Amino acid sequence: MIKIAIIGFGTVGQGVAEVLMEKRDYLRQIIGDYKVVAVADSKGSLIGDFDLLNAIKIKRERGLPEGMDAMEIVENQDFDLLIETTITNIETGEPGLSYIKKALKRGKNVITSNKGPLVVAYSELIELAKENNCKLLFEATVGGAMPVIKLVNNCLAGNKILSIKGILNGTCNYILSRMEKEKMPFEQILAEAQELKIAEADPSYDVDGIDAASKLVIVANALLGIDAKFEDVEITGIREITPEAFDVAMEKGYTIRLIAEAGSNGLKVSPRLIPLQHPLALQGTLNALLIKTDLAGDVVVVGKGAGKRETASAIVSDLIQLYG
Amino acid sequence: MIKIAIIGFGTVGQGVAEVLMEKRDYLRQIIGDYKVVAVADSKGSLIGDFDLLNAIKIKRERGLPEGMDAMEIVENQDFDLLIETTITNIETGEPGLSYIKKALKRGKNVITSNKGPLVVAYSELIELAKENNCKLLFEATVGGAMPVIKLVNNCLAGNKILSIKGILNGTCNYILSRMEKEKMPFEQILAEAQELKIAEADPSYDVDGIDAASKLVIVANALLGIDAKFEDVEITGIREITPEAFDVAMEKGYTIRLIAEAGSNGLKVSPRLIPLQHPLALQGTLNALLIKTDLAGDVVVVGKGAGKRETASAIVSDLIQLYG
Repeated sequence: MIKIAIIGFGTVGQGVAEVLMEKRDYLRQIIGDYKVVAVADSKGSLIGDFDLLNAIKIKRERGLPEGMDAMEIVENQDFDLLIETTITNIETGEPGLSYIKKALKRGKNVITSNKGPLVVAYSELIELAKENNCKLLFEATVGGAMPVIKLVNNCLAGNKILSIKGILNGTCNYILSRMEKEKMPFEQILAEAQELKIAEADPSYDVDGIDAASKLVIVANALLGIDAKFEDVEITGIREITPEAFDVAMEKGYTIRLIAEAGSNGLKVSPRLIPLQHPLALQGTLNALLIKTDLAGDVVVVGKGAGKRETASAIVSDLIQLYG
Repeated sequence: MIKIAIIGFGTVGQGVAEVLMEKRDYLRQIIGDYKVVAVADSKGSLIGDFDLLNAIKIKRERGLPEGMDAMEIVENQDFDLLIETTITNIETGEPGLSYIKKALKRGKNVITSNKGPLVVAYSELIELAKENNCKLLFEATVGGAMPVIKLVNNCLAGNKILSIKGILNGTCNYILSRMEKEKMPFEQILAEAQELKIAEADPSYDVDGIDAASKLVIVANALLGIDAKFEDVEITGIREITPEAFDVAMEKGYTIRLIAEAGSNGLKVSPRLIPLQHPLALQGTLNALLIKTDLAGDVVVVGKGAGKRETASAIVSDLIQLYG
């Protein structure tokens, strides 16, 4: 029986809980029996014997009840796997960083969807997992449902990864692909994206390239073996792109996309010209990654970079990697 | 020490041998020590202690020397893994089918790049592997270096695969994407492709959709759990596509591609209209697959569908899955 603690019970945490219930019969065949023995967020928790469906209902209606706090659960409760889905803070990594460290120190496996801890302390966390003979998996931190980490480590095993280049922020891609079609200014399309909840009220995390840069740091560490930090990324956002820039680009058969790239020339996030029929000339909120390898040549993957069930999909694939 | 027998020593077999030599130090760290103890083709073989680099030289200069024949090697020699890369025959599956069956019956692991045996006898071979407690891996049979089997089984683990749709023949994609650009008739572009060695002298295996249909049968069996045979595929090739058809399509923002699709509506290979900026509207000889899932939504992968090192890449990823 795999005992699971879910810390962070917002959209992602609830999405995972839902999939763990929906797919119970199927997943049991692959990983054996499992049980969620704790859920917690910043305000409250449930531990021990509780109904998971009911936990989601309680959370939505009135919030989780006050109880053991998240850190206490991670420190003292009996569980095998921490699924850490708290909110991302790429400056401190907290609160996820402390939860993950504590769990790893206890020899517990961890699956996280939280970029912060990995951006702040990638090598330290991987080292900690090794020392304590447990695993830290994080497929959900980059590209949502789009396979990235496992794609390289499993599917392209044996290849040397020369560079990685892609679209790692769906909001920017939405804005740029709309600007391409509508020839309207950035501010106007941003307002539209905000109305559609594709962009946040404070859009800077997305449109200034911070989110894409965070994911790039994780990818550079995990797949290229570069000990990169956030400060190593040269970042240009998309605020300065004009409809006229699209006119000029498209006359020559190009469009403009926010591209994150890591390789021997360092780490860079910036708007780039992409041929109109290139696999990275994507529409909408999709994410994509082009992986340059020594044997397989270029491999491109495209998928949904965000969403509740999509992120849950990545977490479940990690769960199966751990226990399948 | 993993003892490897390579049966089939053409482009693919030699490519694998080259990569096994080139990446020896790296691969040893992952799978431990290994040695190629036999290579054979339809005309000759080398067994025991021989230099692999020299074997390639001999093969190229004067052919492998007469010796133990391939079937005798598979039946009687001491090896752990058969890498089967003989020529594809989708009607009989031979000679690969007999080699694979024999090796599995002896409890030996098998990696194959040969579509024939799987198209003819997928379930029988998988069953045989299970019964004899060994594995049959075949990433190289579909899409060359483009990950397909592992992409679904590992990266998208936990997802239900609803349907699969893609470009599984690079020759057809080359011809159609050139017709799109040049507005020239099929026959003319085919002649050009033949000159460039992208199409064979007898092009029917590619342009009549037979190759794509074979791969679709493997994918349907392996990833959708459909017990499909070649006869179950409804096939239309690309010979009838005219430049005028492209004109009509492109006026409405579409292009034409040969699409292989498997799902609840059965198996079909046919030319289809694809929006110009769709991830499947690829140029050149690339392959692509769009995988529709219940959690991850649509995931698209694009890669090189053929080539010596590309196919070796897929075989090496299988090798690492087996012994890594």
